[in-house]
Amino acid sequence: MSAVLADMAIPFALEPWSNERLALVEDALDAWVTADAPLGLDHGAPAALVEAMRYAVLDGGKRLRPLLVLAAHEAVVGSQHTAALSAGHNAAMRAACAVELIHAYSLVHDDMPCMDDDVLRRGKPTVHVQFGEASALLAGDALQALAFELLTPIDDTVPCVTQAKLCALLARAAGSAGMAGGQAIDLASVGLPLTERQMREMHQLKTGALLQGSVMMGAHCGTPDATALEALLEYGAAMGLAFQVVDDILDVTADSATLGKTAGKDADNDKPTYVSLMGLQPSRDYAQALLAQAHRALRASGLPDTQALAALAEMVVSRTH
Amino acid sequence: MSAVLADMAIPFALEPWSNERLALVEDALDAWVTADAPLGLDHGAPAALVEAMRYAVLDGGKRLRPLLVLAAHEAVVGSQHTAALSAGHNAAMRAACAVELIHAYSLVHDDMPCMDDDVLRRGKPTVHVQFGEASALLAGDALQALAFELLTPIDDTVPCVTQAKLCALLARAAGSAGMAGGQAIDLASVGLPLTERQMREMHQLKTGALLQGSVMMGAHCGTPDATALEALLEYGAAMGLAFQVVDDILDVTADSATLGKTAGKDADNDKPTYVSLMGLQPSRDYAQALLAQAHRALRASGLPDTQALAALAEMVVSRTH
Repeated sequence: MSAVLADMAIPFALEPWSNERLALVEDALDAWVTADAPLGLDHGAPAALVEAMRYAVLDGGKRLRPLLVLAAHEAVVGSQHTAALSAGHNAAMRAACAVELIHAYSLVHDDMPCMDDDVLRRGKPTVHVQFGEASALLAGDALQALAFELLTPIDDTVPCVTQAKLCALLARAAGSAGMAGGQAIDLASVGLPLTERQMREMHQLKTGALLQGSVMMGAHCGTPDATALEALLEYGAAMGLAFQVVDDILDVTADSATLGKTAGKDADNDKPTYVSLMGLQPSRDYAQALLAQAHRALRASGLPDTQALAALAEMVVSRTH
Repeated sequence: MSAVLADMAIPFALEPWSNERLALVEDALDAWVTADAPLGLDHGAPAALVEAMRYAVLDGGKRLRPLLVLAAHEAVVGSQHTAALSAGHNAAMRAACAVELIHAYSLVHDDMPCMDDDVLRRGKPTVHVQFGEASALLAGDALQALAFELLTPIDDTVPCVTQAKLCALLARAAGSAGMAGGQAIDLASVGLPLTERQMREMHQLKTGALLQGSVMMGAHCGTPDATALEALLEYGAAMGLAFQVVDDILDVTADSATLGKTAGKDADNDKPTYVSLMGLQPSRDYAQALLAQAHRALRASGLPDTQALAALAEMVVSRTH
């Protein structure tokens, strides 16, 4: 559909779009995080380890990152091609599950006593509470490796050039100049005064890198042109930062039951947040400004079908948990 | 050189061969585990995290896995091509460093209080003792991601098909049906009686998968035929198992100063070992039998230049630390 038609179309309904894809993602995660040896290995993984991995991954979470992967992929290839996703074996679905595994492993390790020492996650006991610290450590480690297994199927359903690109993007988004690096800065900054610029840099690594990486991985499952790639990169940066600003807002405005995790944690831990730095209303204004920036980037992308990406950015900013 | 000439040649001198390559590996690790942004990223990693990563990786260890990668690569492409290794940027050197990063991260996490709770490694305080538990956890996580970054250079010096294959091999060797899976079985088996078959399966995952993976990654940096691949797979399995049998022997026969880590740890922790199961001399006989099996596999490979692989297997069995 043309850009003009898209503007005239009835408002995009995110919920049915999401629900259809979430069901596919859940099925794929359920199939791929398993003790069987579905990846062509001689033997499977030990059942106890896989149980902890499945506990960490299945039946929980907003699945924002997989949805971003699939939305970016559909923006690049056009949503008329999404029926192919139902096969569940193409690059975009593998990428969607891989980013979720990285996200899940980071939560498992982040919740451990030596890090945030949290006992509640998605309304359930955290992995180390349920299975012990050693199992949580290993389950997180194994989930990171499994993410790269998913991106490199031995059955050649994903072209080598795509496999290599997806691994490159995911490794950088997850590593020392991405998510893990941001967590290290976060850890080192407890109780320290940060400028707005320093906090933005921390969050660009800690949360932004994997959110932006999700968008770029989805895009690279198609063949985007340079204009589209640059616009999606900017969309990813703005949306990723907005996510963190809203996270900080919710930490002081929502209760634990709504969040599914312990509220007020950052303030209790004397962690610098947007709210502590800017105040509550300026933080809300900033989130809206970032949303507008994300929308501008999508309009500049030259891609006709960015409604799902636009709706996901809106969801990120308006969410209550 | 022909197989006949190889048989007639003077004995292979492992030490000069190793020293030359170890220097290249150290230089490459020093260059790649860094806070700079050498991989084309906009920003580097936080200095404190990189310091812990470098502490975990540099100036220590036997570097057996990188040497196996390089030896397997040279066996497949012929050692006359090794001058190209000095550039330090080809697939084999990246693979060599990537497996060492995975090995290093596994040691960092393994030493943590919730796992083996060890304070001494390679004659130095372990990472969590030096930098704290949270930093050790994050450094290990970031090292695993960095391994996959190394395998996927954005400068196209490594063909995409090789990048994808190396990521596939490393992810499976490190993951739930490889190293992490073996550690989980190890953890669950403390104080439990294991049969020799159960213990072999545990070690095939815990130690064997990454050693065998090193051999296969090196091989896949060239273009081995099916006969050579099958033989190298068997060599890797036998050598990997021999490594663990000898590890168990050294745990009871060597002192901590020689080992560079706490001796007698496994016996103290009531972990099943080959020595506790078979006795000391039968364990030594078993290691010799595995060495002979590794040698037979190399002779069956059809590869003319397997002297380094043969010598490394001998070193694995005769080592004193």
